[in-house]
Amino acid sequence: MFTILPIKGLFEQIEGFYCDGISAGLKPNNALDLGFIYSDTLCDVEALFTENRFQAAPLKHYQMYEKDFKTNFLLINSKNANAMTGKKGIEDINTIFSSLNYDVVNPIMSSTGVIGNPLPIEKIVKGANSFNLKAKNAYNLSKAIMTTDAYEKNCMYEVKLEDGSSFKIGAVAKGAGMINPNLATMLCFICTDANVPKKDMKEALKLNSKTTFNAISVDGDTSTNDTVLLLTNKKSNTYNKEAFFEALRLVMHDMAMLMVADGEGAKKAAAFEVKNAATYEEAEKAAKALSNSLLVKTALFGEDPNFGRIASTIGASGIKSDENRLVISYNDVIVYNKGELVFNEEVEQAAAKVLQNDKFKITCDIGVGEYDFTAYGCDLGYKYVEINADYRT
Amino acid sequence: MFTILPIKGLFEQIEGFYCDGISAGLKPNNALDLGFIYSDTLCDVEALFTENRFQAAPLKHYQMYEKDFKTNFLLINSKNANAMTGKKGIEDINTIFSSLNYDVVNPIMSSTGVIGNPLPIEKIVKGANSFNLKAKNAYNLSKAIMTTDAYEKNCMYEVKLEDGSSFKIGAVAKGAGMINPNLATMLCFICTDANVPKKDMKEALKLNSKTTFNAISVDGDTSTNDTVLLLTNKKSNTYNKEAFFEALRLVMHDMAMLMVADGEGAKKAAAFEVKNAATYEEAEKAAKALSNSLLVKTALFGEDPNFGRIASTIGASGIKSDENRLVISYNDVIVYNKGELVFNEEVEQAAAKVLQNDKFKITCDIGVGEYDFTAYGCDLGYKYVEINADYRT
Repeated sequence: MFTILPIKGLFEQIEGFYCDGISAGLKPNNALDLGFIYSDTLCDVEALFTENRFQAAPLKHYQMYEKDFKTNFLLINSKNANAMTGKKGIEDINTIFSSLNYDVVNPIMSSTGVIGNPLPIEKIVKGANSFNLKAKNAYNLSKAIMTTDAYEKNCMYEVKLEDGSSFKIGAVAKGAGMINPNLATMLCFICTDANVPKKDMKEALKLNSKTTFNAISVDGDTSTNDTVLLLTNKKSNTYNKEAFFEALRLVMHDMAMLMVADGEGAKKAAAFEVKNAATYEEAEKAAKALSNSLLVKTALFGEDPNFGRIASTIGASGIKSDENRLVISYNDVIVYNKGELVFNEEVEQAAAKVLQNDKFKITCDIGVGEYDFTAYGCDLGYKYVEINADYRT
Repeated sequence: MFTILPIKGLFEQIEGFYCDGISAGLKPNNALDLGFIYSDTLCDVEALFTENRFQAAPLKHYQMYEKDFKTNFLLINSKNANAMTGKKGIEDINTIFSSLNYDVVNPIMSSTGVIGNPLPIEKIVKGANSFNLKAKNAYNLSKAIMTTDAYEKNCMYEVKLEDGSSFKIGAVAKGAGMINPNLATMLCFICTDANVPKKDMKEALKLNSKTTFNAISVDGDTSTNDTVLLLTNKKSNTYNKEAFFEALRLVMHDMAMLMVADGEGAKKAAAFEVKNAATYEEAEKAAKALSNSLLVKTALFGEDPNFGRIASTIGASGIKSDENRLVISYNDVIVYNKGELVFNEEVEQAAAKVLQNDKFKITCDIGVGEYDFTAYGCDLGYKYVEINADYRT
């Protein structure tokens, strides 16, 4: 038995972690654009990275450390991804870390923003050298890592175990555009004081990514920079595997749901539930096809219960299916039932009403097996085009 | 030796073929919405259909005929796809054909429009019974099959062989939304009088679809109704395999290029050339990933030479690649060169100028093998969202 409850504040509440976000002049108008996480002891660290073949320089830099390295410092900038920047990208990171006016061990960098431009080293060094390493302000950090995000993403929980001991776990994240299954321009930094064994860190991240970060999509693109980092200073001196896995799942789920609801210009968050597919892989494939379909996304934007696009997308996904077994519903409103034309005026009005909500579920019962998967997506409207037609400017 | 030249008029120029488009009241404002192709002799027919698992009723109806059937009549409606309509969809087609006030042999139906509504049988029968079977107006037919198309799509060629004999080949088509590799709400009807053997018809259609209809994309969706039909009445009594294959390729390429340039709301047509990939399949995969990427498409709309999105898409496609071998160009302007940061202000301006054109080529030289593929796509702007947010209304 254990309880997981949200608590006030963010991961600066964990003893030994310090963090902040400042303006280093990368973004205009003194917006926050550079942040850090500092730990007063060395932390175990584990990461998940993008599946994009062209990993950005900070991801390569991280992977140059030896296995099971420990760290006490993480530097994060927005506005510039330091991706497709060749050898210079990695050299720049080393230059930055060797120019700091304080000591850190195995420092990690993380970047997000435009691809293909060299990092503004001087601004970053100047900013990093102005950090107050005793600051405790994860909220500012969550602001500093935003790009086209409309709001900050963060959460914080305390986990109480049966023996009265407890540990804490919290995260800050950024999402918005380029979000797709298998991580995509998303950064998520998770700090905990749980006494979690190294091998459980990796296992828990991998397991929970399947149903959280890898189940969401904004635009089907996968970025060069996606990173999920888990840091633990183990200061709680307590651990329970089941409780930790569930708490981490909750943190990752929270962050994933905030990301999908904040898809660039999105007004609506949809859960695409595929039920009773022939295999787990087919359930996943069809659910992700729905969350990525432009025609489905624009129909959601138009609040149009055009179930033909849902059906067509299931058919186009190539999974085992039969239109005489398929049932499609918008929340509880059945709009297509095994080949019967149930879509009369009354049903249409009820379905349209579902789509007027900010959040809803679209269910496709394939009816040929017993495997389910839920993917999460959003609508696509004018704002998405506006944001992406001139993101660099 | 042979010559292929465009000729005046459309496939009504071929002796024995009759065609027209009329208003049957399916579309508002007396717009043309119903058409036919009639032949005064029985024709050989061959078809390519969508890979969507939920094929529309007319596709199923066609496939109920025995192998190598001949036909003299094709009925085509827009505004209603007769898809996801169960058994009733096929019954409706039979009802329509049994209600005609003239005799036809193995009639074929083809439909495009909204999915999931029953066909308006009475309007279609009334319209079909008003056809003038001696009409020769393929232009009207190409208008009647339009849905969100901005213009008609048709072409006509004469092929002259070395021995002085000749045959004709022409097509009408519709495209616009839901266009994706492996056909997608596109209809294309090709008529010829070439004396082509049945087995060559299928071979030529399949071969040429790879580099034409299956290489274009508007929005990555694949419809329930896609159909390419090839009819021949063999009246020219002449044939040359090489000439026929090339002429058919030209017809299919013409139609495919008109479709991609008329993607819903599209202003720009782009060729995405992937060169020197490790395998043909990888070249195709990467080229199609580019033509389908929302971030690439919106950058084209914004005339933004944001090559980072091109690079990121290549990386995300998962093909064998290396950022130190990759070269990216917009027409002849190299924007990324094997890890060197060549993207200075001058290059950026030159690249931006390329994107101001209606048509351009984006080349990614992967540099790891010797296989090439070119996919064709378009930009995505506000108009696409407008069209698709309320297509049913």
